[in-house]
Formats: sequence, C-alpha cells, structure tokens
Amino acid sequence: MHDFVRSLGNGTLPEAAFRHFLIQDYLFLIHFARAHALAGFKATSLSDIRAAAAAVSAIVDVEMPLHVSYCAGWGLTEAQMEAAPEALETMAYTRFVLERGLAGDLLDLQVALAPCLVGYGECGERLLADPATRREGNPYDEWIAAYTSEGYRGAVCDTIAMLERLGQEAGATARYPQLLATFVAATRLETAFWDMGWRAGLSG
Amino acid sequence: MHDFVRSLGNGTLPEAAFRHFLIQDYLFLIHFARAHALAGFKATSLSDIRAAAAAVSAIVDVEMPLHVSYCAGWGLTEAQMEAAPEALETMAYTRFVLERGLAGDLLDLQVALAPCLVGYGECGERLLADPATRREGNPYDEWIAAYTSEGYRGAVCDTIAMLERLGQEAGATARYPQLLATFVAATRLETAFWDMGWRAGLSG
Amino acid sequence: MHDFVRSLGNGTLPEAAFRHFLIQDYLFLIHFARAHALAGFKATSLSDIRAAAAAVSAIVDVEMPLHVSYCAGWGLTEAQMEAAPEALETMAYTRFVLERGLAGDLLDLQVALAPCLVGYGECGERLLADPATRREGNPYDEWIAAYTSEGYRGAVCDTIAMLERLGQEAGATARYPQLLATFVAATRLETAFWDMGWRAGLSG
Amino acid sequence: MHDFVRSLGNGTLPEAAFRHFLIQDYLFLIHFARAHALAGFKATSLSDIRAAAAAVSAIVDVEMPLHVSYCAGWGLTEAQMEAAPEALETMAYTRFVLERGLAGDLLDLQVALAPCLVGYGECGERLLADPATRREGNPYDEWIAAYTSEGYRGAVCDTIAMLERLGQEAGATARYPQLLATFVAATRLETAFWDMGWRAGLSG
Repeated sequence: MHDFVRSLGNGTLPEAAFRHFLIQDYLFLIHFARAHALAGFKATSLSDIRAAAAAVSAIVDVEMPLHVSYCAGWGLTEAQMEAAPEALETMAYTRFVLERGLAGDLLDLQVALAPCLVGYGECGERLLADPATRREGNPYDEWIAAYTSEGYRGAVCDTIAMLERLGQEAGATARYPQLLATFVAATRLETAFWDMGWRAGLSG
Repeated sequence: MHDFVRSLGNGTLPEAAFRHFLIQDYLFLIHFARAHALAGFKATSLSDIRAAAAAVSAIVDVEMPLHVSYCAGWGLTEAQMEAAPEALETMAYTRFVLERGLAGDLLDLQVALAPCLVGYGECGERLLADPATRREGNPYDEWIAAYTSEGYRGAVCDTIAMLERLGQEAGATARYPQLLATFVAATRLETAFWDMGWRAGLSG
Repeated sequence: MHDFVRSLGNGTLPEAAFRHFLIQDYLFLIHFARAHALAGFKATSLSDIRAAAAAVSAIVDVEMPLHVSYCAGWGLTEAQMEAAPEALETMAYTRFVLERGLAGDLLDLQVALAPCLVGYGECGERLLADPATRREGNPYDEWIAAYTSEGYRGAVCDTIAMLERLGQEAGATARYPQLLATFVAATRLETAFWDMGWRAGLSG
Repeated sequence: MHDFVRSLGNGTLPEAAFRHFLIQDYLFLIHFARAHALAGFKATSLSDIRAAAAAVSAIVDVEMPLHVSYCAGWGLTEAQMEAAPEALETMAYTRFVLERGLAGDLLDLQVALAPCLVGYGECGERLLADPATRREGNPYDEWIAAYTSEGYRGAVCDTIAMLERLGQEAGATARYPQLLATFVAATRLETAFWDMGWRAGLSG
C-alpha cells in the first residue's frame, strides 16, 4: 500500500500532505469532469451519452461541492484552491487522460479513466480490511467513509460493468497490449500523484 | 418565413412533412447532445462545464423524452426513430457543428450551435406575432407552445448572454469574418433541414 | 456503375456536370487533407505519423496542383474554386469523415476515408474493363488515366494493406458492425457526391 | 540561464544528463510531430495545412533522423530510445500542448508550441553571445550549431511571423490573459524538462 494511503488509514498522515493533495485533487477534478464530458461526445448511443452526463454532474454538482465543504474544514476556500498553481503531477495525469481519449476512442478513454475511480475503491477496501486502519479519532475518517460508501462502491461496480460491455463491443481482446499500456501509464500517474502528496508532508 | 414554419403555424403542414421532420430531429438531437458534451470538454471554467452538463441533461433527460412522447401521438415509437436512416441534411448539419467545434474553440462551437436554439426561439416569436397563426385546433400547437414557453425563452436569453460574454473573452470582434461564416453556414444548414421536411410533405 | 462514372467513361458526361464536380472536389480535397493530418495526430507509431504526413503532402503538393492545372483547362481558376459555395453533399461527406475520426480512433478514421481512395481505384478498374469505355477523343481521358495509373494503384494497395494491419491491431473483427456502418455511410455519401455532379449536368 | 543550458555551453554538462535528455527529447519529438499534424487538421486555409505538413516532415524526416544519428554517437540505438519509459516531465509537457490544442483553436495550439521552438532559438543566441561558451572541444558543439544554424533561425522567424498573423486574425489582444497563461505553462514545462536532464546528471 502506498505510504500516503497507509498513513491516511492509520491517521498519521501529516496535515501538510493532505492539504496539498486536496488542493491538487480539486484542480484534478475540473479536468476529470472535462474528460467525462468528452466521453459524452465520444459516445454513439443515447445511454452512453446519458451515463457521461450523469458522471459530469456527479463530479461538479456532488463531489466537488462536498470537496469544497470538506476543504473548508481544513481552512481552504474554493478561491484558494482555484488560484493554486497546478503541480506537474496533476498536469501529467489529467492531460494524459484527456489526450488519450481524444486520440483514441471511447474505450481508450474509459481505460485511461479507470485507475482513478476503480483504484480509489480498491484503496478504500484495503483500508477497511487492514487491522492497522483506525477509524475513531482519525482526522481522515470522512475520506475513508466517502470512498467505501455504498454509493461509491456502486459507482465502481457500474464502471467495471461498463468497461466489460465496451470491451466486448470495441475489440478489447485484440487491443489488449495498447489498452494495458494505457492502464499502466494512468496507474503510474495515479501513484505519482500520491507521491506528490507524500513529499509535501515530508517538507511541509 | 419558411414554408414549413408558416404552414406549421396555420396548421396546414402535411402530416408526412412533420413526421419526417420529427424523426430526423430525433437523430439530430442525439448529435446535438454530443455537441453540448463537447462544449463541456472545451470549457476552461467550472461554471462553463456545469452549463454544458446542464445543456446535455436538458436534451437527453427533458427534450428527448418529451419528443418521444410527442412522437408516440403520431404513431412513432422510439425504436422506429432510432432505426430510421439519417438524411443527408441531418448528417451535414450535425457533423458540421461538431467538426467546427472540434477544429475551433468554445466560441466557434457555440456560434455553430446558436442558429438552432436561438433560431427556434425566433420562429416561435414570429408565429406568435403573425395574425395567420392558428392555435386552436392546430395539430402542431403543442410544438408552438414548446418553443414559445417561458422555459424556452429563458434558455434563448441565457444562450445569447453566454455568447456575449464568451465573445468578449475570446476576441469575437477581431474574429468576426470567420465567426460570421460559421453562423451563416449553420443557418443555411438549418434552412436545408426545413426544406427536407417540406419536400417530404410534397411527396408523402 | 453510377451514371456519372459510366458517362465519364464513354465521354458523354455533360461538361456542366464535370465542372461542378471538379469545383466541389477541390473543396472536398482541402478537408481530406485535414483528415489525413488528423490521422497523423491519431497515430501512435512513428511510421503511421510519417505515412499520414506523406498522405497530406500527396494531396496538397501533388494532387491539388494537378487538379488546379486540370481545372485551368476547363476555364476555372483556383480563386474561383476557393470562392465557390460548398454544396450540402460536400459538407455532409467531409464533416462526417472528420467527425467520425475525431469521435473514434485511427481505425474508425481510416475506414471512413477508405471508400474515397479505394472507391476511385475500383471505378477506374471497372472503366478499363468496360467495352463501352472510350479513351481516344474522350475529354475525360486524363481523369481515367489518373485513377488507373501505377501510382494510384499502388496507393490503393498500400491503403488496403494498412487497413488490414490496423484492423488486426485494433480489433476490427469484434468491431465489425460499427466499422461496417461507417463504411456504408461514407460510401452513400460518395454516391451522393456523384449524384450532385450528375444533377448539375441535367440542369446545367 | 538554466544550469543545463549554461553547462552545455561551456562543455561541463555531465554525459548522463545529456543522454537522459536526448532519450526523452526523442519521445518528446514523436508527440510534437503529432501536435503539428493536429495543427494541419485545425487549419482552415490551404497554406496553413501546407505549413503544418512541412513542420511534421521537418520533425520526422529531418530532425528525428539527425537526432537518431547524433544519439548513435552516444551509444544509443533508436530501438533503445523508443523502448525507454516516458518521464513524467515528458508526459506533462507533450500532453499539455496536445490537449490545449484540442480544447482550443489553432492559435491556442501554436502558442502552446512556441516556447519550445522559439525558446531553443533564444537559448542558442544567448550561448553564442556568452563569453563563457566554449565551441572547440565541446562535446555538445554540434547541438549548439544545430540550434544556431541559418535554417533554425529561419524557422524561428517564420514561427514568430505566423504567430503575429494568426494573432491578428484570431483576436489575440482580447484573448491575451488566456494565451499568456498557456505560454507561461508551456515555458514552465520546458524548464521542468531541463530540470529533469540536470537531475539525471547529478545522480548519474
């Protein structure tokens, strides 16, 4: 487990690390909303267009307002977050996903998006299963709760089911080497994002 | 006023013309929802992303279901509409808008989208002001009502205000010849779409 | 065989038809050059980027200058061709190809491009094999020669080979229904383009 | 002047730094060729399409082969360069430029591309003017020569002239804050790219 996630689970993550992560995650979500909007353009069926519009709404109307209110508890205003300079790790990850989606088709885009949504679900489950995880008195418990909620688990299941269906339709088996390369690259960029947060805690 | 709009206003439009128009308009709306999703990707501010997501929802969750129920009254199922071959006029208009939006920036895209939304509002106002318009007993009255409703008028005003703001930010004055060419091309494609409906009534 | 192609082969095609076709084909080639440039962006390997750049050059540095000099023989200047209004058929075909390529991946784009290049090769071969084709004294003989030249045949073979390779890599078998729909739509748009030329000869 | 550029100029740059830089620059150029291909799609005039095709050819047919032969002198094969993992800095810079170009119009794309081409020209001129620069016996002299050649200077002038023209047409004055933000972001990513090379020399 990544040091950032593990120490978030046992409550020892330095506040500076979490604050830096939260600010960059806010900037990240703006581009992730754009990536889901792009999925709506890339879609050819009405149901895929609807699903993409719902994903954008979930980010900008639900997740980001929660994020903003959560950040307020750490003394961060939305204006501060918007004005923060974008880190190299944030730029690399978000632009990689968007560009992969633009160069490729809807399947390429969804594979590039998957490590974030599905990876957070996986982190949440591992924290729940880990005896070292502390819930009571953990300043990050709300975060653990969010990514292990029924709602979030449902979104993860829906995403995996959508990938399966899209994979069938769009020839995922034959395209496996390229799709795997996309998935691996996005996963490494997710890891680099945690690294960035962790380093902010060491220096902060 | 275009023959199609005028005869829709006085209730003399042949049913074959309206049915053909409705089916193609259904196919058109799928791509218009994709174009608004594209606007969400092209947006750089959170408020523009939200506005684009709301526009997609308005089409796929409100306008299209109304369209479907309306069409049911004319004996058309959603499956029939989806299976209908796309007319040349529908392809030309929708792909022109999408491609202009992809090659250009958000302002280019919104200018290409404007003749449809704003033009329908204009048609509605002219019908209301025209003494030849007949509301009672007009089989198309529901259509007139839809595009002269408070909700639709509000959407037209919002679109015009958004174009003004975007135009200021994105140098519309200097870009006027190119933007005008886009607006004129989209307006001609809108006209060709009415022509297509009208011809279906002559031959139907 | 389409009336336009057949009568071009036996030399009876009205000059008005051919002139209208040539002008629209000039406008068409501008967007086809853009579509090949798009293929260069969509490519992931250096050899595919090189192939796309070569295709753009072949259109703008070889095919279009030939086109221009050919048109000069029919009394058309390049300025006249550039200033001509774009026909609905030209818009529908070019924007469909570009938009399909943008929404899909490189394979989707190349399948949308194929009916033009490969179809012209096919028309050329059929004309050569047809006893009704007249070469001597046929005002369109230069056109027949161009699309049955060794150079053009080589380009057709290369395109088919590239589609085979790309199809293997990108899961064409599983994606067949969608790819076929793209190919059929582009072929119908190619036919509509011939229809447009033919009609100009009837009215001209 | 950046440490990387300064020490390249006086010949003290560690070989490990330059090798790392060269490999990443090779990967970078693949995506820069794609970005110029994208400019060909975004172009609306034949001359801009031609200019973009020429820029792609200059990269893949001239600059990259020179790069490959140059790298061979440092013991690097093209296969090794292609197989090298892409650094975070390379991903961030290349994908930022491509995505900015896709979300925006041709001017946005060209502004995002400018710091690289024009910046290298600027570095070359400063090295030439700097008394600390050593040409004879400098293992990097070929690099200095390449970016201060007449050919390169001409390309820089052409690029600046093209930006001026495009800026006039596309309302650069009104769009200045957004264009400046793009230019600054790309410049910072260029700097991060030098930083990456420099760090490889410290640890190598």
